[in-house]
Amino acid sequence: MARLLVTLLFTMATAHLVGSEKGTTPNLEAVFKGRCYDYSEVVYKAILPMVSTSCDDLWTKFFQAFSFRAPCDVRADLYTPFLQAGKQSLPSDKVLFWSGVYALSHRFAENGIRYVTLEDTLIGYLANSLSWCGQEIAPGMNYSRCPSWEDCPSEASESFWAGASRTFGSEARGNVTVMVDGSNPNKPAYRRTSFFAKYELPGLNKTLVKAVNVIVAHDLSKPKLEVCGAGSLIYLQQDVEAAGFTFTCVDDPDSVIHLLCADDPTSRECQLVLSHINGQLTDMQESSGFNNLPDIFQ
Amino acid sequence: MARLLVTLLFTMATAHLVGSEKGTTPNLEAVFKGRCYDYSEVVYKAILPMVSTSCDDLWTKFFQAFSFRAPCDVRADLYTPFLQAGKQSLPSDKVLFWSGVYALSHRFAENGIRYVTLEDTLIGYLANSLSWCGQEIAPGMNYSRCPSWEDCPSEASESFWAGASRTFGSEARGNVTVMVDGSNPNKPAYRRTSFFAKYELPGLNKTLVKAVNVIVAHDLSKPKLEVCGAGSLIYLQQDVEAAGFTFTCVDDPDSVIHLLCADDPTSRECQLVLSHINGQLTDMQESSGFNNLPDIFQ
Repeated sequence: MARLLVTLLFTMATAHLVGSEKGTTPNLEAVFKGRCYDYSEVVYKAILPMVSTSCDDLWTKFFQAFSFRAPCDVRADLYTPFLQAGKQSLPSDKVLFWSGVYALSHRFAENGIRYVTLEDTLIGYLANSLSWCGQEIAPGMNYSRCPSWEDCPSEASESFWAGASRTFGSEARGNVTVMVDGSNPNKPAYRRTSFFAKYELPGLNKTLVKAVNVIVAHDLSKPKLEVCGAGSLIYLQQDVEAAGFTFTCVDDPDSVIHLLCADDPTSRECQLVLSHINGQLTDMQESSGFNNLPDIFQ
Repeated sequence: MARLLVTLLFTMATAHLVGSEKGTTPNLEAVFKGRCYDYSEVVYKAILPMVSTSCDDLWTKFFQAFSFRAPCDVRADLYTPFLQAGKQSLPSDKVLFWSGVYALSHRFAENGIRYVTLEDTLIGYLANSLSWCGQEIAPGMNYSRCPSWEDCPSEASESFWAGASRTFGSEARGNVTVMVDGSNPNKPAYRRTSFFAKYELPGLNKTLVKAVNVIVAHDLSKPKLEVCGAGSLIYLQQDVEAAGFTFTCVDDPDSVIHLLCADDPTSRECQLVLSHINGQLTDMQESSGFNNLPDIFQ
């Protein structure tokens, strides 16, 4: 069961995508504005600078980009007024991009405490996990069905995330970090079709960013299919260096291993030297089960 | 710096309390309703059952409890209609109570995936980190100043959290877990004045709950001041057994150690057997610094 959770951490790769095949999230405006006030007043108050545009104005700009038009007719530039108004300057050395590792990267980032992901910025926070698309007739949004990203080239939420990713990249400074998945049998760790490759890397400001540091994370229970210096990580290095940045890469830094081990402490990789020395390994495995995950996925 | 973060995890003990000395959170109604829709449609949709009361009705019931009355004149029973309407049945063996370890317990719980805290339930989610109090004149809420919990016996938000804690305890079933802080020099791990002791433990349903399993967590950088079987943990055992439940206690299960180590991987306690065997310890410490936390607290 613990393995299942760890696997889930890796496979929840595209939280942005929940809109596909669903309609617009009910009460979208209330959720959007509630998140906006919450973000400004409570959640990220001490982490990132606030913007000067009001929550009502942000909603108006967001809504105008896609409402009262066909859901496949939303070019990324329609979101420009919203993205410009919602853009925040980002702290140096703290930006974390991710590809294929949504849940793990966000646990790692700790809501802006350790790193800032797109979803920690106001722009990403407002839209994360929501679904929306327009229709030409009132109320201007389709609550019953939105096309998937594959259905059309200028889909409302894909265009949004493309613009949001580019904006996020453009505000990064110092050394930036990218986390990718080295144990997915269905996708290379680095794909030139990923949002990182298409929008974030090209959006980086050459005068602000120095190095791109890559973390290749591996599911404890799966083979390490891709590692630094091999496979698609070679293409990533080429693209980073061609863009003018220093490239570094590390497989599973200890911080990441520990996060994975929190869900799977009996794994061979997770045994601690101190426990080993003290002979506590057996005791722990026989203990009253705090380490076991409840069975919520059955 | 890593130590500072770990310390912060322990000292952010009372996230509920941000209201003290501040006025009501601006746009309280919009934040409350936005969270309510967000909770129902997006955030916890797959984790906990939804309630049948609408978000508008929940706000009305919440607002009626404290608005248009003096801020020190809010008895806990005024929240009963709200608490009854917002109450959810909780999954067996998944309830996590906490005392003095707000941040760590919530990282451990993983938003309902591993455990369900009060703040993962609708009632706690709606109010977490918000500040509110009433006044007798319009608009019925005081946006400039609310009394602290110490200022009055029936303070609006303290009464709320008392009722919310009792309600949460009453819905727990199976084996429940409590996480406490064994390394706080200013507070015992277990206090009979804590919300757990005053409201959650007495609220547990004897026919639904079997055992109370205690986790004593210790900051990696501090002395272990209290451990299972000694000090205030003895009082906790007495109180749990007097209430009719089985008591178990464990100090720092591996899952918790790994969570702490994710922030402080170079600690002696955090060295992994595999790294040690492979001679990677030195390499890791010399690596390009992914494990170092950015310096955001200066």
